[in-house]
Amino acid sequence: MAKSKFEYVRSFETDDSCLRNCYIVVRLDGRNFHKFAEQHAFSKPNDDRALGLMTRSARAVMSELEDIIIAYGQSDEFSFVFKRTSSLFKRRASKLMTHVASQFSSSYVFYWKEFFGAQSLLYPPGFDGRVILYPSNRNLRDYLSWRQADCHINNLYNTVFWALVQKGGLTTAQAEERLKGTLAADKNEILFSDFGINYNNESALHRKGISLIWEKVNETVTKRVKLPNQEEKDLTVTRSRSRVQDYHCDIIGDQFWQEHPDILEEGG
Amino acid sequence: MAKSKFEYVRSFETDDSCLRNCYIVVRLDGRNFHKFAEQHAFSKPNDDRALGLMTRSARAVMSELEDIIIAYGQSDEFSFVFKRTSSLFKRRASKLMTHVASQFSSSYVFYWKEFFGAQSLLYPPGFDGRVILYPSNRNLRDYLSWRQADCHINNLYNTVFWALVQKGGLTTAQAEERLKGTLAADKNEILFSDFGINYNNESALHRKGISLIWEKVNETVTKRVKLPNQEEKDLTVTRSRSRVQDYHCDIIGDQFWQEHPDILEEGG
Amino acid sequence: MAKSKFEYVRSFETDDSCLRNCYIVVRLDGRNFHKFAEQHAFSKPNDDRALGLMTRSARAVMSELEDIIIAYGQSDEFSFVFKRTSSLFKRRASKLMTHVASQFSSSYVFYWKEFFGAQSLLYPPGFDGRVILYPSNRNLRDYLSWRQADCHINNLYNTVFWALVQKGGLTTAQAEERLKGTLAADKNEILFSDFGINYNNESALHRKGISLIWEKVNETVTKRVKLPNQEEKDLTVTRSRSRVQDYHCDIIGDQFWQEHPDILEEGG
Amino acid sequence: MAKSKFEYVRSFETDDSCLRNCYIVVRLDGRNFHKFAEQHAFSKPNDDRALGLMTRSARAVMSELEDIIIAYGQSDEFSFVFKRTSSLFKRRASKLMTHVASQFSSSYVFYWKEFFGAQSLLYPPGFDGRVILYPSNRNLRDYLSWRQADCHINNLYNTVFWALVQKGGLTTAQAEERLKGTLAADKNEILFSDFGINYNNESALHRKGISLIWEKVNETVTKRVKLPNQEEKDLTVTRSRSRVQDYHCDIIGDQFWQEHPDILEEGG
Repeated sequence: MAKSKFEYVRSFETDDSCLRNCYIVVRLDGRNFHKFAEQHAFSKPNDDRALGLMTRSARAVMSELEDIIIAYGQSDEFSFVFKRTSSLFKRRASKLMTHVASQFSSSYVFYWKEFFGAQSLLYPPGFDGRVILYPSNRNLRDYLSWRQADCHINNLYNTVFWALVQKGGLTTAQAEERLKGTLAADKNEILFSDFGINYNNESALHRKGISLIWEKVNETVTKRVKLPNQEEKDLTVTRSRSRVQDYHCDIIGDQFWQEHPDILEEGG
Repeated sequence: MAKSKFEYVRSFETDDSCLRNCYIVVRLDGRNFHKFAEQHAFSKPNDDRALGLMTRSARAVMSELEDIIIAYGQSDEFSFVFKRTSSLFKRRASKLMTHVASQFSSSYVFYWKEFFGAQSLLYPPGFDGRVILYPSNRNLRDYLSWRQADCHINNLYNTVFWALVQKGGLTTAQAEERLKGTLAADKNEILFSDFGINYNNESALHRKGISLIWEKVNETVTKRVKLPNQEEKDLTVTRSRSRVQDYHCDIIGDQFWQEHPDILEEGG
Repeated sequence: MAKSKFEYVRSFETDDSCLRNCYIVVRLDGRNFHKFAEQHAFSKPNDDRALGLMTRSARAVMSELEDIIIAYGQSDEFSFVFKRTSSLFKRRASKLMTHVASQFSSSYVFYWKEFFGAQSLLYPPGFDGRVILYPSNRNLRDYLSWRQADCHINNLYNTVFWALVQKGGLTTAQAEERLKGTLAADKNEILFSDFGINYNNESALHRKGISLIWEKVNETVTKRVKLPNQEEKDLTVTRSRSRVQDYHCDIIGDQFWQEHPDILEEGG
Repeated sequence: MAKSKFEYVRSFETDDSCLRNCYIVVRLDGRNFHKFAEQHAFSKPNDDRALGLMTRSARAVMSELEDIIIAYGQSDEFSFVFKRTSSLFKRRASKLMTHVASQFSSSYVFYWKEFFGAQSLLYPPGFDGRVILYPSNRNLRDYLSWRQADCHINNLYNTVFWALVQKGGLTTAQAEERLKGTLAADKNEILFSDFGINYNNESALHRKGISLIWEKVNETVTKRVKLPNQEEKDLTVTRSRSRVQDYHCDIIGDQFWQEHPDILEEGG
């Protein structure tokens, strides 16, 4: 039973640490979530309970794993960006992505009730993950823009599609046929003409997805303290704390980044 | 908002597919489980509820992800072995390990109540994972032997340690001092002389850990069928099904492998 | 000028050591050798000087880098197989392949004159390399079989092609046209009917390529020694030495491997 | 002999393409060059023939492999930097480093005579290589600074060491002892006091190493052309060409980079 005789097997492990000075992105995707959404009767085109649960789980990940500077989510996916100088888990890709996948998944089940109340979770869901490195601020912003553009394209499509079905009385096959080959402008037009919907007035959460960042907030606490002369007195203390804040705004343009200049670092 | 403008960022993803014709092992380890065990009042030296929950979660992983031929667990860790010819997720290491970590973690929370009843889960736990490749049957068996030897060494230590504390009235510091430098034989002797415990009669689950494999079982179902002549008749059908079976036995020696010759494949 | 200030850049190096217990194959391919062959007037379909120089360079690599158990070459390529247990350069892929590429290339220029005599080398040639791992003996033998089958297919084609051109008076375009869609049997038939050539009697070097292995040979040396009584006497000493031996035989079938059972190792 | 039966072995090759938008550095180091230098009677502390041959070989690499923007060499090492946007060999690390190692090594033997004249090359030398990625301009400059600082430190030491031996009559052991624990200032002082040498007046080639970059040069060619009226006339044509230029200057400070702003690219 000598352990040492077998310990040589450790030498088969390989080092998968991420190149230094690059942003490390871990993206999670729900496994078979199309089916999961149907089985749990998610409302169409968007289910705010599900988006709330995704956000809650992402917050849990951010609180648990330091060095995440921004997370962006939409639909059944969430991306987590570790700062380029992070040395968490010695930058080992496997540790980073499995921790994120694990913490997100256990949180999804743990917080289910907060968002779905009495509706039961039928089985434990799965999320897969991957790691991608981005060497420059431009590359990272383009990654996030790619995901937000994806959110926009899908949400515009889904909004029209389900309007045609739910309000227009089309079958899903008919709705699909109707939208074949249409451009964004066409879809906006259908929404407006047929259903009186101005897409830009639709929920920002649905159109823009969820961006989570750390923000300093001032917390003011009032404590009653006893002075040396035995008198009591109210003392007001203001402390600066970091807190995860969520945004449902455009992150493709420059404004968001100018307003939050601390998220990105110089290349060094 | 053209998605295509940003899509170049996809080319930063790297291919991490595992070398062919090697066993792929994914090992999970509980994150900060020492603290987790204390906060959830796990009994010492082993908590059968916790081991049951680990086993249940591992079963969920095996049922969800094909191609796992054996899983071995002990304490807060579990190893999953994919067959050497597996092409699941195109053998991409990131997909394999994040799926395992995710499915295990969501299952751990999902099935908590089955094992801990009314006792609340205080927060969602985390597990990290890694991938290791083994080119030969010998290497794989040595890996599993390494983990079972680790189980043995830890469990023997913990069994004596907690006997000294719980039955012998020592403080944990005293128990630690008492065991410093002792060999396996010494620990067996303390157990026997001081507490009348024969270590070999202790629970096999604790001494050997949990091995999960697929086994063919014959299921006999009796169905009532209507014959062409309108008579009814009971028909007994026996079908062969694969089912996850758990073992708490030695997997270091040859016997287990001789009795289950289908687990390992020839190098081909 | 403090070096230490910059030394952090070393941490950007990554570990690329090869998975243990796998055969490590380094294959070199000549860069633009079609053009190189023309510029140096290589005879067609095979140039024995060029093949001799390839072999000489491969020998230099084998003598310089321990742990190569077999090398196989044909045309402008050569594969070197390191034993599965090798720990040369800590199994770092980059070290292994650059050393092979470097030693082979410098040898090619160094030994040029031995094979091409007065004919000048016009410029320094280039070879690229790659590393491939094979976990099992079967996989390795299939790799070598793949290369030898490639040798066979190319050499049969080239033999007919150049017979049609050099003896049959066809242009290269006509020869190409003539061979379009022909099978091996057709090519053998053309060779025999049109040119009286039995392909199987062609040079084994061209048909089978070059296999280099280490072989023990007995060296007998006679030394004159002075005895204590001042007499002199001839003393014959036989020593066993390892030497690189070349073969031009089939390595796809079992015979070669049965005759040289020491080349391959058990998977361990 | 069906090749297809064995072709599955190709699937064991792995993709090792370098992360996009990073500088790719290939560094070569001479193998056992201490011994090589002794066997070929290199002069101490620096042999200008050997440095010339290294430079000539590096030029051959730059001319052969596009996308190298700067190369830096000293002693028996040379670093080649590929531009961050290079797609040469699809950025495959193995291709890049073996090509550099191969071309450099064959060139070293090929051009030997140009620098060593009648002195024979005793055997083909070897160089090993590695690939390192740098995500930012700062990182790349720090890498090059690291190598030049290394050059400075070694050359200062060697200059004093060999002055003590060659002019001061010390044994190598005594010289080593004398220099133990000395700082740069001490070494400068020994050089000046004992040998009247001002280190800063020593050869820039030895103190700063060799930097090779591409530079546009104007080539003026005069051609005699025949005019429509049958007269002949001299026509002077000035064309801009890129040529590898060598520098022996400081590349740690900003001046060199300000004077050659085209070497580095923005992070994009």
